[in-house]
Amino acid sequence: MLTTPARPAPVILLSDQAAAHLGPGMARLFQDQPYTIVRPSDLPATGSHDIDIAFISRDVTGTSSKTVLTDALLRFYDILRHAPRLAWVHGHSAGADRPIYPELRARGVIVTTSSGANAEAVAQMILAALLALGRRLPDLMAAQRRHAWEPLLGARAPRDLAGQTALIVGLGPIGQEAARLLKMLRLQVIGVRRSDAATPHCDRVLPFDRLNEALPLADWVILACPLTGQTRGLLDAARLALLPAGARVINVARGEVAVERDLVAALASGALGGAFLDVFETEPLSPLSPLWDLPNVIVSPHTAGHTSGHYAAVAELFLDNLARWRSGQAMRNPMP
Amino acid sequence: MLTTPARPAPVILLSDQAAAHLGPGMARLFQDQPYTIVRPSDLPATGSHDIDIAFISRDVTGTSSKTVLTDALLRFYDILRHAPRLAWVHGHSAGADRPIYPELRARGVIVTTSSGANAEAVAQMILAALLALGRRLPDLMAAQRRHAWEPLLGARAPRDLAGQTALIVGLGPIGQEAARLLKMLRLQVIGVRRSDAATPHCDRVLPFDRLNEALPLADWVILACPLTGQTRGLLDAARLALLPAGARVINVARGEVAVERDLVAALASGALGGAFLDVFETEPLSPLSPLWDLPNVIVSPHTAGHTSGHYAAVAELFLDNLARWRSGQAMRNPMP
Repeated sequence: MLTTPARPAPVILLSDQAAAHLGPGMARLFQDQPYTIVRPSDLPATGSHDIDIAFISRDVTGTSSKTVLTDALLRFYDILRHAPRLAWVHGHSAGADRPIYPELRARGVIVTTSSGANAEAVAQMILAALLALGRRLPDLMAAQRRHAWEPLLGARAPRDLAGQTALIVGLGPIGQEAARLLKMLRLQVIGVRRSDAATPHCDRVLPFDRLNEALPLADWVILACPLTGQTRGLLDAARLALLPAGARVINVARGEVAVERDLVAALASGALGGAFLDVFETEPLSPLSPLWDLPNVIVSPHTAGHTSGHYAAVAELFLDNLARWRSGQAMRNPMP
Repeated sequence: MLTTPARPAPVILLSDQAAAHLGPGMARLFQDQPYTIVRPSDLPATGSHDIDIAFISRDVTGTSSKTVLTDALLRFYDILRHAPRLAWVHGHSAGADRPIYPELRARGVIVTTSSGANAEAVAQMILAALLALGRRLPDLMAAQRRHAWEPLLGARAPRDLAGQTALIVGLGPIGQEAARLLKMLRLQVIGVRRSDAATPHCDRVLPFDRLNEALPLADWVILACPLTGQTRGLLDAARLALLPAGARVINVARGEVAVERDLVAALASGALGGAFLDVFETEPLSPLSPLWDLPNVIVSPHTAGHTSGHYAAVAELFLDNLARWRSGQAMRNPMP
């Protein structure tokens, strides 16, 4: 954990929306100590900016994706790039893989993430995905559109989930909560993480370099890891070929953790039985991608973590880190 | 629990498929004691049949619904109606509301059901339904068909499930397992059952006559009760009007537990936020029903309990009851 000395009278960059929402909480935090909130519209269009702290809240990112950035987000980044005093940036996302974060980190800026704030929501989306695919909801809903009554009898009956094996790659807050939920459904859970330390709710834990041992056992591969040098391109054609026929893939990590063309090929050939994909190599996913129309594929627009309570959970994490910053305590979720 | 004296050399009516599957298990059970398996094709088309026991296995019902019966099922019923010695019938379903069962019961035939055999599967379908509706999978999948990238931001962000209230009507094996699963997602669970005895995994339990107190609190109404005089027409316009705006209904019980035209009206007006319906007043659901096309309604063809393991679980229950029958022990799941 990184620590930082308390700073007197910090200048804090917030969006208009975050300034409105966080004003009361910050007033309570600082009490009679001085601080200044600035918003992008308060700052000149060019020149350098006297800012100590910035909070990239969800509304700043808005409809930006990692590929397509809105003007509001580009303006925010531009301010950060011209803020020589900037010491700490907190982001709303669980991951810090967008290029701005390593760039700031390389300048010595402390970067903290909101890892954990949406863990429950994302883990529930993993469960929603597993149940929807496992109980053939896409088939049932396709029959519904045809007004066709087609019960899942005989060979169409889904396999019981109890006793199936789920391989969870990445055991951060999301992966651990997913493991807990899947154990409640009596699946076998194998976790893959950097260390092979025992982890609650996992029947077995393997380090990344032993991933290939677990793939032949996996009815479900759940990608919930950060995007790093180690995880980029992790699920490629060679590894997909190790899975049992009809295995399903759930990706709530980052699109680049799987090789998208290999995934498409395995889905199109029927080697994979289905997928729930919340993330893609390019976002928004191109309207021309074959993924939209593949049967048994659910395309989710990088929205697994979006619930109405998420904004508040991120704000709470930022305020907690702000209190830690002021008192010189170790902050939560620092980027290494 | 009903008990029955052991009978020597019983004649047991099984379908061809059940005879093939259960042959080895029955041979183990009877060892060197005499018994006879007969199949419908072994029996004359008319006249009376010397049968002691019958097992209505899943394949006998086949694609029959409660409204439309296949010839194979009608033939099976006809045999039962002309079997004066018939003492016990075991059915594959959790419920015994099809008219044949009260008719046999009125003759003094013991009727046992497979209540519990599909409880895990049906409870998981309840969870699949709640997560699919709660996380807006129908909206996401509709956007997918348009190749449209529409994340659930702002007002479209789904409410966090933790803290929402689910009202489970009926706390048999299905309702209790559903309660367990919903508690793991940190919902509040109110159960409604014949008695108000405390029940595992429920925050509160109310008797049926206090149902109306719980309705204004219910974000989710889950019908998982048997169809009885008390539950027929339970969820009608007056009770639907007591629910908070946007509440959702999940029915895995019997169609007649809700008043279907009232459900349609509440869904069409937007008073209800959505529904997952596995059962209907008439089955198969008419292709002309408005339910097929209502937004946020998932129509499931009475298939919530169908998994590949269900056949084996029902067979195991029948064999267990057969062993109890032979030794004069109380049988499982007797119809009162």
